[in-house]
Amino acid sequence: MSIKTKMRVHFYDTDTMGVVHHANYIRWFETGRVEFLRSIGITLTDMMSDGILFPLTEIKAKFLHSAKFDEDLELETIPVELTKVKMEFKYKLRRQSNGEILVKGYSQNVFTNAATGKISRLPEKYFEKMENAINEEMAQEQ
Amino acid sequence: MSIKTKMRVHFYDTDTMGVVHHANYIRWFETGRVEFLRSIGITLTDMMSDGILFPLTEIKAKFLHSAKFDEDLELETIPVELTKVKMEFKYKLRRQSNGEILVKGYSQNVFTNAATGKISRLPEKYFEKMENAINEEMAQEQ
Amino acid sequence: MSIKTKMRVHFYDTDTMGVVHHANYIRWFETGRVEFLRSIGITLTDMMSDGILFPLTEIKAKFLHSAKFDEDLELETIPVELTKVKMEFKYKLRRQSNGEILVKGYSQNVFTNAATGKISRLPEKYFEKMENAINEEMAQEQ
Amino acid sequence: MSIKTKMRVHFYDTDTMGVVHHANYIRWFETGRVEFLRSIGITLTDMMSDGILFPLTEIKAKFLHSAKFDEDLELETIPVELTKVKMEFKYKLRRQSNGEILVKGYSQNVFTNAATGKISRLPEKYFEKMENAINEEMAQEQ
Repeated sequence: MSIKTKMRVHFYDTDTMGVVHHANYIRWFETGRVEFLRSIGITLTDMMSDGILFPLTEIKAKFLHSAKFDEDLELETIPVELTKVKMEFKYKLRRQSNGEILVKGYSQNVFTNAATGKISRLPEKYFEKMENAINEEMAQEQ
Repeated sequence: MSIKTKMRVHFYDTDTMGVVHHANYIRWFETGRVEFLRSIGITLTDMMSDGILFPLTEIKAKFLHSAKFDEDLELETIPVELTKVKMEFKYKLRRQSNGEILVKGYSQNVFTNAATGKISRLPEKYFEKMENAINEEMAQEQ
Repeated sequence: MSIKTKMRVHFYDTDTMGVVHHANYIRWFETGRVEFLRSIGITLTDMMSDGILFPLTEIKAKFLHSAKFDEDLELETIPVELTKVKMEFKYKLRRQSNGEILVKGYSQNVFTNAATGKISRLPEKYFEKMENAINEEMAQEQ
Repeated sequence: MSIKTKMRVHFYDTDTMGVVHHANYIRWFETGRVEFLRSIGITLTDMMSDGILFPLTEIKAKFLHSAKFDEDLELETIPVELTKVKMEFKYKLRRQSNGEILVKGYSQNVFTNAATGKISRLPEKYFEKMENAINEEMAQEQ
């Protein structure tokens, strides 16, 4: 399963070149992750309450086309790997008007213990939800 | 005493109108406050370690002229009132090349207890430093 | 007529105090203005195509309560004055869960000629739409 | 030749995890590029005046350690390839206090014609400066 998040480009997202500043796409990937996790019953607020943090450890993006102010976009967030120690996602950001892919991305987060800062294994209650989601994703791909 | 902070406009600070997006001036006021406090021996990190937060409660700004990418600016941060429960500052942001005032601003922060979220009185060790600074400011004005 | 815009707090909107960074509220006011104008048939993209810019000239905000990551908010954007040379709005940002007002704001934009940078009078085609909206607003208030 | 840019973490750069939000590192890479180009006599403002844009086409980053509010950082920007159609850089962001590498990055920009949006070859006057810089870099490495 992947999840799609709609967004519209704000004026403050753009720069002097008249297009979305690239760092904002990286921010939007986060929005995609958050919405993906919410869709499988996990909120980052719960995780933080349980003393779990989720720092980003890697990001990659290819910027194919630009988006302008007021354009409607759709971000597809696709789980790649969800384990007890990390989560990896792929992203495809499309222009809604023509379906053109603007940005392709990848991210990796690890789970850490908020108190120690060390990588820690995700409690079962979170991992079960992720496992179900990724199994469903793999089943769909076959 | 007021303090002057130099800054250069980044590409990511600008928007489609080719000028600094106004919300960034509000961010820069914060930088001015932080540098002012540092100049009188106070760091926000110390405050947070002591369980004190400093939420912004009011902001005002007049935007007179625009700044563009790569321009050198100078922010003057002027204390207006520093008490045990709040701090108020005025700001003047100038273009370095010609001294023109681009933005005038005002801010008010209150001090709160991080645990309760309630307004709390600033410990003496911080307040003494602020009192010295504001007395010096008033002496200079006479 | 006022307009209501729903928004959810992103992780990247927050700061070390665990709440929305205040400059983001200023950004959101812009989103409110854009949506208000769209609701009366005006887009900033059209304006820019017609060589009209709309720099912000004044902002005020009072921050009453904080919003946290993932909270659902509703921004009410209320026209105060819409003339051929400027537009003024008031804002009320509420927490959706309890209706509590978090931030109250005010903004003023002027209309300028993109080529000259000087204040210019808004063409009739835009002003008519604004006039209708503000008349409707005043009629409702009576 | 590489170039080093000093920066200090602002409060508004941080998020609820108490560290710099990752998208800001991507913004800072841009600052590094701009300062590198300035150091070899090229400004983006000149390029834009000549009708040349420089959209980012690819970004990669590995986030090894976190930076907190008020920490002093040093960004090293290292040219990898500077041709008439693109520029590639590597980045190393270090904590000044202990030299620890926090983030490693890579970026690719292409040069486009502002009017057509198509990739275009960089005029000789810019390319010469880049060629000198990269030759110097390669000479140093031997």
